[in-house]
Amino acid sequence: MALIVQKFGGTSVGSVERIRNVARRVAKWKAAGHDLVVVPSAMSGETNRLIALAKELQPQPDARELDVVASTGEQVTIGLLSMALLELGVKARSYTGWQVRVLTDSAFTKSRIISIDDAAIRKDLKSGHVVVVAGFQGVDAQGNLTTLGRGGSDTSAVALAAALKADECHIYTDVDGVYTTDPRLVPEARRLRTITFEEMLEMAGAGSKVLQIRSVEFAGKYKVPTRVLSSLTDPALPVAEEAQSGTLITFEEDPHMAMEKAVISGVAFNRDEAKITVKDVPDRPGIAYAILGPIADAHIDVDVIVQNVGHDGMTDMTFTVHRNDYAKAVKILNDKVKPHIKCREVSGDERIAKVSVVGMGMRSHAGIAAQMFRTLAEEGINIQMISTSEIKITVVVDEKYMELAVRVLHKAFELDQA
Amino acid sequence: MALIVQKFGGTSVGSVERIRNVARRVAKWKAAGHDLVVVPSAMSGETNRLIALAKELQPQPDARELDVVASTGEQVTIGLLSMALLELGVKARSYTGWQVRVLTDSAFTKSRIISIDDAAIRKDLKSGHVVVVAGFQGVDAQGNLTTLGRGGSDTSAVALAAALKADECHIYTDVDGVYTTDPRLVPEARRLRTITFEEMLEMAGAGSKVLQIRSVEFAGKYKVPTRVLSSLTDPALPVAEEAQSGTLITFEEDPHMAMEKAVISGVAFNRDEAKITVKDVPDRPGIAYAILGPIADAHIDVDVIVQNVGHDGMTDMTFTVHRNDYAKAVKILNDKVKPHIKCREVSGDERIAKVSVVGMGMRSHAGIAAQMFRTLAEEGINIQMISTSEIKITVVVDEKYMELAVRVLHKAFELDQA
Repeated sequence: MALIVQKFGGTSVGSVERIRNVARRVAKWKAAGHDLVVVPSAMSGETNRLIALAKELQPQPDARELDVVASTGEQVTIGLLSMALLELGVKARSYTGWQVRVLTDSAFTKSRIISIDDAAIRKDLKSGHVVVVAGFQGVDAQGNLTTLGRGGSDTSAVALAAALKADECHIYTDVDGVYTTDPRLVPEARRLRTITFEEMLEMAGAGSKVLQIRSVEFAGKYKVPTRVLSSLTDPALPVAEEAQSGTLITFEEDPHMAMEKAVISGVAFNRDEAKITVKDVPDRPGIAYAILGPIADAHIDVDVIVQNVGHDGMTDMTFTVHRNDYAKAVKILNDKVKPHIKCREVSGDERIAKVSVVGMGMRSHAGIAAQMFRTLAEEGINIQMISTSEIKITVVVDEKYMELAVRVLHKAFELDQA
Repeated sequence: MALIVQKFGGTSVGSVERIRNVARRVAKWKAAGHDLVVVPSAMSGETNRLIALAKELQPQPDARELDVVASTGEQVTIGLLSMALLELGVKARSYTGWQVRVLTDSAFTKSRIISIDDAAIRKDLKSGHVVVVAGFQGVDAQGNLTTLGRGGSDTSAVALAAALKADECHIYTDVDGVYTTDPRLVPEARRLRTITFEEMLEMAGAGSKVLQIRSVEFAGKYKVPTRVLSSLTDPALPVAEEAQSGTLITFEEDPHMAMEKAVISGVAFNRDEAKITVKDVPDRPGIAYAILGPIADAHIDVDVIVQNVGHDGMTDMTFTVHRNDYAKAVKILNDKVKPHIKCREVSGDERIAKVSVVGMGMRSHAGIAAQMFRTLAEEGINIQMISTSEIKITVVVDEKYMELAVRVLHKAFELDQA
């Protein structure tokens, strides 16, 4: 008997009939003898509907009030899903974020989880209940409602699994696992049966949308075995079979597996990026903080950051942000940063894309970067920025070359071969 | 400068444009120098939509889970209304029921308020905020979400006014005050400028739907001056004029006013009732409790109760319940009561109506009952039950005579005369 946290996305609970199917699926796992904590998202379309209402009243909605409104979507689903379970004769009980005290910071609309009180959940599990907890939402130390930002329900589920020391966390999605790249772009893409936490983190960071990156970070930090699997299979699929489906995120590479494993696990990409360059800034200590500090204060996430060696005591700094944050970031740099540091200009480009190759095997294989750059050069694709980590190489290219880059890299690293 | 609690019903906040109008109205009062606490209902139709969703999943929805779902309607409105106020440049801040700790009992879907913590509200008022509090909802001592039942937002508003010792509580509705009877039935009905708390209580109990009866009870218990007024007037109506509109519920009858006041203030009626008779029960102590105890335990409200003098050690007991509770009440009597007491049969009638005349003047004027009964007799209307209080006389008649009874009584007591 295992303790399993199961998260269902908005599409999976998008109608009364689908909620009923989720209940059937959960009931099946419960009947197999497991303890279940279920984390549903809002019904698909609901969060967007609420945000649209808010924007009609206030084009830039007050963040605190927006969270009050947006967090209702998941509250509706937990009640409905609990009813569906009760109707099947399964004992169930719902909790909002504040009721199990999913304590977060106060960064409304993009809060981070600090702690979760597991007392009520454990008590209900002990008495045979399926516990249904609202994803996406929490409460800050002052008692204000908060939300975790888009995709936050994944994070809620993994954080709950960590707090409860669950045996496994299931993330049910509309895809059946993690692929070597997006099959819509490359039909030859293959599903990975396992992926290491580090690879998953880099894939998510590089734009693979299967899991929200913060949920992967949580999974890694607390070593929560997390399985991405499909909510589109028959709810009556035998538990033994469902338990082996999808892609499992692992934490220690099996040495035997590693022998057989490809050098590269996947090609990830992201077109929702923009790059910003601050030109000719003084090349002195503290300059990176002077530029990026105000950006971070505005809760804008910065992704790739590149600073090359300086010349004549000056240097350039380039970084990427989400395309939605581009205008705000440029304004901050012009209004708050430029007056305080000497810099020639702030420029940027919204039409860029990020393409990455990711793989644990990279650590023991030289020449991956060279092979990647050669592959792109052969197609005449210019590389605008390069950034590397131990298991990932990312390039920024003109947006129009993105699909081509992904396809040729997927082929060059033989990801289409079983 | 006064502290005013203003409650707006579902129709008043039924669309983005209407929420904007409520914000304009509130902003106007704020600009006139008053402290405002605003209690909106859910957007019209929303609560029904949520309950319908719930019933699709569970025909008899679990009460605890239903409250989790239903309470989201008001949570959406408080956020949206706060945004609308902020957009007008008015400082505003929303609170759910649990955030200001509207502590209730645990009778899900029909909870009663025990206490309200006013600390956060007072602090925000002091710093110049309009405070927006969700109506209809609360939290029990175990931290479960609760709702107060239909019309509960009126109760929330009056309870807040009581807790804050507000100068006045405004209940904005789609009618412009309390009338001598329903103008849809009797076009000659007149608006009352004032009505005493006791009269209002009897009017509400007798089916006048302007205010929920529990809100009137709260108003009376804590002597909250409560004004019923229209939300359909121009939001820009001068404050001085709006402050005199509608009907004010008063607590002490002005002796001078009383001189001029009509004996009867209004004729109330209710067609949503059913009567139940338990025939030939032993006429001994404890029998009323034996019959009505199990009904109360099922949270079914009993209204008129009549027990006449017994005969041969036996008596009959008749009472009325809401028509929706009729089948359930009959079942309880047959299953749980009949086996324990000797009684011949449980019978009932769903096609009855209640008609009442209400007025403080009744206390000092004899013969009101006689006049009422004569008036009905002249029209050939048979009286099935009679019940009286100090300021109300209620009769139960066949439903088909209801309109006629109301019209002739309204005329007989000269309520159409200014």
